[in-house]
Amino acid sequence: MTENSFVLTAYCANRPGIVAAVSKVIFEAGGNIADLQQFDDPDSGQFFSRVVFGAADAPLTEGQVRGLLSPIMERFGMTWSLRAQNARRRVLLMASRFDHCLADLLYRWRMGELNMEVAGIVSNYPRETYPNLSFGDIPFHHLPVTKATKAEQEEKLSRLIADEKVDLVVLARYMQILSEEMSSRLSGRCINIHHSFLPGFKGAKPYHQAYERGVKLIGATAHYVTSDLDEGPIIEQDTERVSHRDSAAEFVRKGRDIERRVLARAVRAHLEDRVLLNGMRTIVFPE
Amino acid sequence: MTENSFVLTAYCANRPGIVAAVSKVIFEAGGNIADLQQFDDPDSGQFFSRVVFGAADAPLTEGQVRGLLSPIMERFGMTWSLRAQNARRRVLLMASRFDHCLADLLYRWRMGELNMEVAGIVSNYPRETYPNLSFGDIPFHHLPVTKATKAEQEEKLSRLIADEKVDLVVLARYMQILSEEMSSRLSGRCINIHHSFLPGFKGAKPYHQAYERGVKLIGATAHYVTSDLDEGPIIEQDTERVSHRDSAAEFVRKGRDIERRVLARAVRAHLEDRVLLNGMRTIVFPE
Amino acid sequence: MTENSFVLTAYCANRPGIVAAVSKVIFEAGGNIADLQQFDDPDSGQFFSRVVFGAADAPLTEGQVRGLLSPIMERFGMTWSLRAQNARRRVLLMASRFDHCLADLLYRWRMGELNMEVAGIVSNYPRETYPNLSFGDIPFHHLPVTKATKAEQEEKLSRLIADEKVDLVVLARYMQILSEEMSSRLSGRCINIHHSFLPGFKGAKPYHQAYERGVKLIGATAHYVTSDLDEGPIIEQDTERVSHRDSAAEFVRKGRDIERRVLARAVRAHLEDRVLLNGMRTIVFPE
Amino acid sequence: MTENSFVLTAYCANRPGIVAAVSKVIFEAGGNIADLQQFDDPDSGQFFSRVVFGAADAPLTEGQVRGLLSPIMERFGMTWSLRAQNARRRVLLMASRFDHCLADLLYRWRMGELNMEVAGIVSNYPRETYPNLSFGDIPFHHLPVTKATKAEQEEKLSRLIADEKVDLVVLARYMQILSEEMSSRLSGRCINIHHSFLPGFKGAKPYHQAYERGVKLIGATAHYVTSDLDEGPIIEQDTERVSHRDSAAEFVRKGRDIERRVLARAVRAHLEDRVLLNGMRTIVFPE
Repeated sequence: MTENSFVLTAYCANRPGIVAAVSKVIFEAGGNIADLQQFDDPDSGQFFSRVVFGAADAPLTEGQVRGLLSPIMERFGMTWSLRAQNARRRVLLMASRFDHCLADLLYRWRMGELNMEVAGIVSNYPRETYPNLSFGDIPFHHLPVTKATKAEQEEKLSRLIADEKVDLVVLARYMQILSEEMSSRLSGRCINIHHSFLPGFKGAKPYHQAYERGVKLIGATAHYVTSDLDEGPIIEQDTERVSHRDSAAEFVRKGRDIERRVLARAVRAHLEDRVLLNGMRTIVFPE
Repeated sequence: MTENSFVLTAYCANRPGIVAAVSKVIFEAGGNIADLQQFDDPDSGQFFSRVVFGAADAPLTEGQVRGLLSPIMERFGMTWSLRAQNARRRVLLMASRFDHCLADLLYRWRMGELNMEVAGIVSNYPRETYPNLSFGDIPFHHLPVTKATKAEQEEKLSRLIADEKVDLVVLARYMQILSEEMSSRLSGRCINIHHSFLPGFKGAKPYHQAYERGVKLIGATAHYVTSDLDEGPIIEQDTERVSHRDSAAEFVRKGRDIERRVLARAVRAHLEDRVLLNGMRTIVFPE
Repeated sequence: MTENSFVLTAYCANRPGIVAAVSKVIFEAGGNIADLQQFDDPDSGQFFSRVVFGAADAPLTEGQVRGLLSPIMERFGMTWSLRAQNARRRVLLMASRFDHCLADLLYRWRMGELNMEVAGIVSNYPRETYPNLSFGDIPFHHLPVTKATKAEQEEKLSRLIADEKVDLVVLARYMQILSEEMSSRLSGRCINIHHSFLPGFKGAKPYHQAYERGVKLIGATAHYVTSDLDEGPIIEQDTERVSHRDSAAEFVRKGRDIERRVLARAVRAHLEDRVLLNGMRTIVFPE
Repeated sequence: MTENSFVLTAYCANRPGIVAAVSKVIFEAGGNIADLQQFDDPDSGQFFSRVVFGAADAPLTEGQVRGLLSPIMERFGMTWSLRAQNARRRVLLMASRFDHCLADLLYRWRMGELNMEVAGIVSNYPRETYPNLSFGDIPFHHLPVTKATKAEQEEKLSRLIADEKVDLVVLARYMQILSEEMSSRLSGRCINIHHSFLPGFKGAKPYHQAYERGVKLIGATAHYVTSDLDEGPIIEQDTERVSHRDSAAEFVRKGRDIERRVLARAVRAHLEDRVLLNGMRTIVFPE
């Protein structure tokens, strides 16, 4: 991640000449491509790409680059986004009683693994739930949810997202289901971790379901939230071996490790603009 | 696996003194325990164990051992089985058009990885389907199945199983669904490989289902066949990473590797008496 | 882990009747075996076992059990240890500048994954190095080490270990090499995490060595410390995939995840008496 | 893999405008880029790329494409190779007594997983060593090697490679060490599978070395052969878990599975022009 470099993601209906046109503009703007990844989906006929480029000599401003790219993007009918590579997205972390994913994301953020600003932490549990977590300057919002208060609290959440200019909401084992409306509003910018290898064991208590079924591996799934519960586009999954010696409680314990690494990878990929939506699937360009 | 050694598997309602009683009998019979594994299921209150023992000095006959164990087994109300460790189970391999699992099992058998006699190969495709597979002396049975002939062919299959004293039937990507009756009759002695990570993607074309859902890992599951399709007790599972670059056809290719190793491990575990049924789950004592 | 249960680990030269004798004593003492694992090493001719047992009816005291087991242990010439299962070992955690393993162990300890008391934290860096870690009541000891002060500081460390009745020392990325004398004194009760897949890349900067060699997987190794650097008995190892796109710095980042899970598993196994030394190798009875 | 498509691999000192220039030529030639992967090595300052492109409309001949690319390649000082994607490389498979890798490669080739022609099979063991392998029309060459005959047999091997226009030699557990001269001559076109996770356990009997050291994972490594034994650039590696219950013989058995999949992946990657040499390391563009 250099000082003066940019990430371009773009997709459009595939046709010859896209790479040539885009790389020409970047070159003529005085840019140097550091990384280019592309994917042609044979099913949908769509072309997807992610380009990282820096200034070859003289520094580039985002405005300049945007101006130069615009015509070419328009010509190919591209949906695109441009971002300075060192710009930090503002992220809202939401948790409930279990804090392993929250703790892990905070740790990785402080280690410099996650290029973000933490805009706030929201929990339906009070601050005392996390006596050993240091939140530093991060604002903590206690938004307890009951059937009666749910609508009102989502209202508050929406305002918070707007006020704090939140780019991404991460449900780090937040155990309340967002309303359909809320889910739609956050489409493509809300990542959830589900504690099963989807599509197996949707809904509540997936480790207990897995235990009952007698599986030999358990897993976790990070996905974009949609109004269709546990059906959103999958960003990352992983599994780990269990045996007959593991009780459902052991599944839960082993699962924590899977959940935290799967969620961390998904959030990192999103923050680095490596995830593109392709219908109900995702493209995740590798690091 | 020594010449004169035995494998005992046994289960019963748990109570104190079982290990003491069993190990005492073995010791007094002149046996030496080479391996003992046990599992107390806190849910069902059942005790499961697998004991491997050899003759400490004078050779033991199976009859002797059986006679000595019987009273103790009866006392604890145990369901048990005893087998000379080098006795080879008779196995019937069933396949359809895709032969990767069949080829792999034959290869491992010849390498000495699978302690079995291959009692026969059954396919609903003719012998010419497998021009590069050497079957040696193994009888090949072509049993083509149509809706009309299914009952009749299962009849033949049953006779074959009886005549050939088949201990285990392995559905090595056999793409016909066994009838409920047949499934019940083979309960606990018929292993199937399903090309998904169950319980995800049951039924037909699981890789295509997985591709449509946009999963990031694919898997395979070896399980005992029951009359409830793809719901039998799971013996072994594994997964492998896929990406957006993988088409459904690539899922199929990568899946072959998972299927063959998952099935081989399950068959091996069964042949070594390391799999015990625990309701709809299995206990698989590790190698 | 029940209130009134015990873990017995024992090893001796193998001979018939050990399991029978031990299980008989436990039964007669009013115990009920909850788990029994054993291993006969064909190379060394040694028998190793770990038995977990609880009181069937009336509660058992450690003294009682010890008294009942002693004669039998003597008879077989067994080296043995007995521990109440809920007794917590006293552990000293040692770290340097990088705190990912320290943070992870503390987190798991608070979650109840590690059955221990943290007797103290020792670092050659000052407390301010860890602004976001909550140490609660755990005493922190800053023992900076230079060539000149090393002997003196190890002296202090030894006293600390004695005073605090430390059972286990964990080098959680502690970057100072212990003296031969210190290593010997802590034999079998000091676990180190080395950031490579041993025996590859011993010594300093293993990720950089790995990068130079162009490996496709990186790993970490938890082992008992011996006076022979990076040569101690291995308890646990794991690996993860890297690619040509990963710089040495990325190896370091990805490695943190491997290190913390490998160390945590090794410490947990030790705390649960599942690790037995077998010459320069270990037996690790599975959970 | 379409009928009329090409794979271009190229590398040179990195500088701005390479992608723009190459993609422009391909576009103007009437080509459509189906896949483009690149890597800028920050250490060496080299740019590496692999481009797959097809004819957008009118068919392209290799001659045409080569003519159009030449000037641009020359301008950037590129080392490059162009190949019709469906052109099959001619591969010589070499084995010794153990045939698991040989059997696996043949199986995958027949399944269409490996885009190659098998130019021949060479073994220092006679044909009878492989009674259950079907070689079909593939010429088999028995070249037994003793100290006395080694030079002479390598002479024959060289002639065979020349006569049969062999593009790639695969040492599929061929247990003879090639001479320095032979290794050099085959530089970059001879792949070996070593049965350890290099750089651990070089040389003979790596599984026995691994067993002695008490590792908890075993591995295999596919690499290009160089005159420096077991030090060639690594293409692919993998590992699998072992336990104290596994003897050295079990390491060998489990290792076979690792070896065959690691070698198959490496050969496939080479055949698809996805491997580029970068000094003593490799770039392996993902499938």
